[in-house]
Amino acid sequence: MADAPTAEVVAALRADLLSAVGTAGLLEPEDFETRSCDPFRPVPILSPFVARPANAEELSAVVKAAIAHGFRIVTHGGRTGVAGGAFTRPDSIVVSLERMNRIEEISDVDQIAVVQAGVPIQALHEAVEARGLFYPVDLGAKGSATMGGTIATNAGGNHVLRWGMTRANLLGIEGVLADGTIVSSMNRLLKNNTGYDLKHLFAGTEGTIGIVTRAVVRLVPLPTTQSVAFVAVESMAKVLRLLNLARAMPALSAFEVMWRDYYEMVANSGTGRRPLEPGHDYHVLIESLGNDPEADEGAFERFVQRASDEGLIADGVVAASERQRRELWHVREASEVFVSEFGTFVSFDVSAELNAIERMVEEAYAALRARFPEVRGGTFGHLGDNNIHLGITIGEDTVARTAEIEEIVFDVLARYQGALTAEHGIGTLKRDFLRKYKSEGELAAMRRLRDAFDPDRRLNPDVML
Amino acid sequence: MADAPTAEVVAALRADLLSAVGTAGLLEPEDFETRSCDPFRPVPILSPFVARPANAEELSAVVKAAIAHGFRIVTHGGRTGVAGGAFTRPDSIVVSLERMNRIEEISDVDQIAVVQAGVPIQALHEAVEARGLFYPVDLGAKGSATMGGTIATNAGGNHVLRWGMTRANLLGIEGVLADGTIVSSMNRLLKNNTGYDLKHLFAGTEGTIGIVTRAVVRLVPLPTTQSVAFVAVESMAKVLRLLNLARAMPALSAFEVMWRDYYEMVANSGTGRRPLEPGHDYHVLIESLGNDPEADEGAFERFVQRASDEGLIADGVVAASERQRRELWHVREASEVFVSEFGTFVSFDVSAELNAIERMVEEAYAALRARFPEVRGGTFGHLGDNNIHLGITIGEDTVARTAEIEEIVFDVLARYQGALTAEHGIGTLKRDFLRKYKSEGELAAMRRLRDAFDPDRRLNPDVML
Repeated sequence: MADAPTAEVVAALRADLLSAVGTAGLLEPEDFETRSCDPFRPVPILSPFVARPANAEELSAVVKAAIAHGFRIVTHGGRTGVAGGAFTRPDSIVVSLERMNRIEEISDVDQIAVVQAGVPIQALHEAVEARGLFYPVDLGAKGSATMGGTIATNAGGNHVLRWGMTRANLLGIEGVLADGTIVSSMNRLLKNNTGYDLKHLFAGTEGTIGIVTRAVVRLVPLPTTQSVAFVAVESMAKVLRLLNLARAMPALSAFEVMWRDYYEMVANSGTGRRPLEPGHDYHVLIESLGNDPEADEGAFERFVQRASDEGLIADGVVAASERQRRELWHVREASEVFVSEFGTFVSFDVSAELNAIERMVEEAYAALRARFPEVRGGTFGHLGDNNIHLGITIGEDTVARTAEIEEIVFDVLARYQGALTAEHGIGTLKRDFLRKYKSEGELAAMRRLRDAFDPDRRLNPDVML
Repeated sequence: MADAPTAEVVAALRADLLSAVGTAGLLEPEDFETRSCDPFRPVPILSPFVARPANAEELSAVVKAAIAHGFRIVTHGGRTGVAGGAFTRPDSIVVSLERMNRIEEISDVDQIAVVQAGVPIQALHEAVEARGLFYPVDLGAKGSATMGGTIATNAGGNHVLRWGMTRANLLGIEGVLADGTIVSSMNRLLKNNTGYDLKHLFAGTEGTIGIVTRAVVRLVPLPTTQSVAFVAVESMAKVLRLLNLARAMPALSAFEVMWRDYYEMVANSGTGRRPLEPGHDYHVLIESLGNDPEADEGAFERFVQRASDEGLIADGVVAASERQRRELWHVREASEVFVSEFGTFVSFDVSAELNAIERMVEEAYAALRARFPEVRGGTFGHLGDNNIHLGITIGEDTVARTAEIEEIVFDVLARYQGALTAEHGIGTLKRDFLRKYKSEGELAAMRRLRDAFDPDRRLNPDVML
C-alpha cells in the first residue's frame, strides 16, 4: 500500500474534486468521522475525501481528477456488504452514489423501473408496490443496501429460487469506467441480442470494472397470496424429495432448510420460536407467493398433502394467518440467537450441490472437531438455490483463529466443488481464498478482463483478485 | 480479406491439424461439399479444413495450429443461425463441435445437465424428458441447433417470457480462448458469487471471445399441463392490459400477438388455420404450462373469465384437447404462408418497448409505404418478451432492395430505442447496422473486451463488430 499522499497533492486533488462536484458533492474527514465501511463494526474511512457526484458526467470528472493526482477510487453504496468491499486506504478517494437516489421512471405496462445507483432497495419496493408491482430482489439489508451496490455484488436474498439473483432482474446499465468513459447501455427489453450484453461487465464484478450510475430493472406483479409451511423431516434424502415436489409449484418462492443444530438452538433459546417440538434431523420452511387466492392455496395444500402421503413429513404446521407466517419466518431468521448463544462466531455463506450437501456439512464439522474439539455450529440455508450458511464457534479463541476455521471448511468445500461465497462476494476479505481455490484458467481469464478495463487498478484496487 | 493461402501453407496446416485431431477429426473439401453455412440456401464452406475436436484439449491444439499457420477460425454448431455467423473465408479453418455430442450427466436431484457443445437441443430434451425434466430453451431449429451454438448466440425461443433466454438457463461453461487457453468454469450451483461470472464471456458473444466446449445447464420440472387460448382483441391498449392480467399467472409460458395483416393472411390462405373469423385488429395466443391439473386449469379459466369481464376479448376459443392446442399454435407458426403469399420477403427479428410497439409498427409501415407503395407485410411476435417479427415484401425487387428496406425499418426502430435483433444475433449480416445504431460508448466497450481476449481477431473474424 502506498504512503499517505502529501498535503500539497491532497490540496490539488481537493480543488479538482470541487470543480467536478461542487461543495454539496464533496465531504471532508470531519463530515464522515462516524461513517463505517463495515455494517457490524466501526471501520473508519481512511480516504481524504468522499466525492458524491450527481450524475455520470460528474462521476467521470471525479474519476479523471483522482487519476490525475495518483489516487485510487473505492466505491460506496449502502456499506452493508460483509466482505470488506468498502474498505478504503489513504491513497484512495471514496465515491458515494448517495446523491443519485432518484427513481427516474416506473412503467406499469412494460413492468420496468429506471433507477439511479443510490436508490435503496426498499425505496424501490415502496414506490412500485403502490402500482401493484414488485422488485424481486429482497434482502435483510434492503433499507440501506442500494441498487448500485447490489448490482455490483450481484446480491441474492430471499427469492433467488423463483426470480434469480440481481443479475437476472437487471436489463440495462449506465456506468463509468476506470478512465472516466461513460458507458450507457440502458436496455429496457427482455429480449435483446444486439451486440455484447455489457451489463455483465458491471454485475457481480464488485466495482472492479466500472462504477454503476443508473440501471433498468424488471419488475413482476406484486404477490397477493402467501402460503407458508414449516415441517420436520427425518433425513436429507427426504428433504431433497420434498424439494423436488415443491419445485413443481410455479409459485414456489422459498425452500429454507434448518439442520438439527440450528433448530434446537433456536427452539431452546427461550425466545418462543418453537413451532414444532425439536428432535428431528431437519426442519424446512416452504413458501409460495402468487396472485390467485383460489388456485394458490389449493395448490399449496395439495403439495403438503402429497408430501405427507409420501411419508416425507414427520411433523408440520401450515400458517393460517399473516401473524403465523411472520412467526414461522422468524424461526429461520434468528441471527441474534447466534450472538446470544455463541458470542463470537465465524459466519459462512457457501453453496454446494444438493447431492453433496449432507456429506459436505458432516465432513466440515468432523474436520473442525478434529482440530477444535469444543466446536459448536448452527447450520441452515436457502437450500433450494444451493446456498447454506454455517455459524461456527470455538469459544473465546474464535476471532483469533478465524483463518484456520475458514481454511478447514473451505478445504472440505473444495473437495465437493462448492462455492466459497454464494451471495456475499469476495470483497477484500475473501481474496486470499479466491486465489487458493479457483482454477488457474479462471483466475487468468478474470485478470485479463480486469486488465482490459482497469490496467492500473484504479477501481476498488484491493477487491476481488 | 486475405488471399487464399498457398498450397505449401495448407499442407503444413493439414499435418498439424492431423496430429491434433487424427483422421477421424479432420474433414477435407470433398467431405463437406454439400454442407451449407446457411439453413435456407447453399453457402459453401470456403475453408480448406473442418476440424472436429473430440475434447477441449484437442480444440486447444487446433487453435494453436491455426495460429501457427496464420489461419482464422470460424466455429460451426448446427449451422441453423440466420445471421451468417457460420460464413467462412479461405484463410479460415472451420471448427465443428459435432463430435462432442455427449450428454455427460443428468442430475435429477440438482436438476442440472452437463453437456458437450455439439449436443442438439432436441437430444437434451428427449434425454431429460424421460426423467420428468425439461430444458427450458425450445426453438424451431432444435433438431439441429446445438447447445454450443445456442449458448454462443444466447438463443431465445418460445418460452423466454417464463424461463428467460439461453443465458438464464446456463450455470457453467468450459471453453477455449483465441490463444488456445482452456477456461473451465463448470459451475453447477444456482447461487455462486465466487469471482467474475465467466460464462458471460461466452454467452451471446457469438464465438468472438472463445469457443464453447461444454456447459452445465439448469433443468425444470417437465410441464404436465398445458392451457391455450386464442382470442381476438380490438386495440393494442387492450392487448397490453390482457398481458398484464396474464402475467399474474406464474405458469404463464407464452403471450403471442398477431397483427391483422398476419392473421388475415393466414386465415385466408386456404390452409384451414382460421380458429376465429378475421376482422379484428389483433389476435393473441396465451399459454400456461404447469404441473398441477387441478390448479392450473382453474387459474387459466379464471384469467380468461376476468379478461372477458373486463371487455378485453372480442372473440375467443380455449383449446379443449391436445389436437386443438396444436392447431392454435399452428396459426402462430405459419412461416410457410409467408413463402406462399409473398414469395421473397425480408424477415425482421426486432424488439421494442410495449408502450411503443403500436406506434413503432405503424411508423415503420408508413415509412416503407412512402418509399415502396406496393409494400406488404405480416406482423406478429412473442409480445410478452418485447420481440416482434415482421415479414416485408415489395414484390420481385425485394431481394435486391433488402438493405434499403432494412434501413427504413431500423431508422424507425432507433427512434424508439428498439433492438435490431431480439434473438437472432448480429453475425456477419447485421454488422453494419450494429455499427450505425449502437452508441459509441457501447461499441468502444465491446471492442475493448474483444481486443482483450482476441487482439488478432482469430475467432469468427467477420462476426459482430
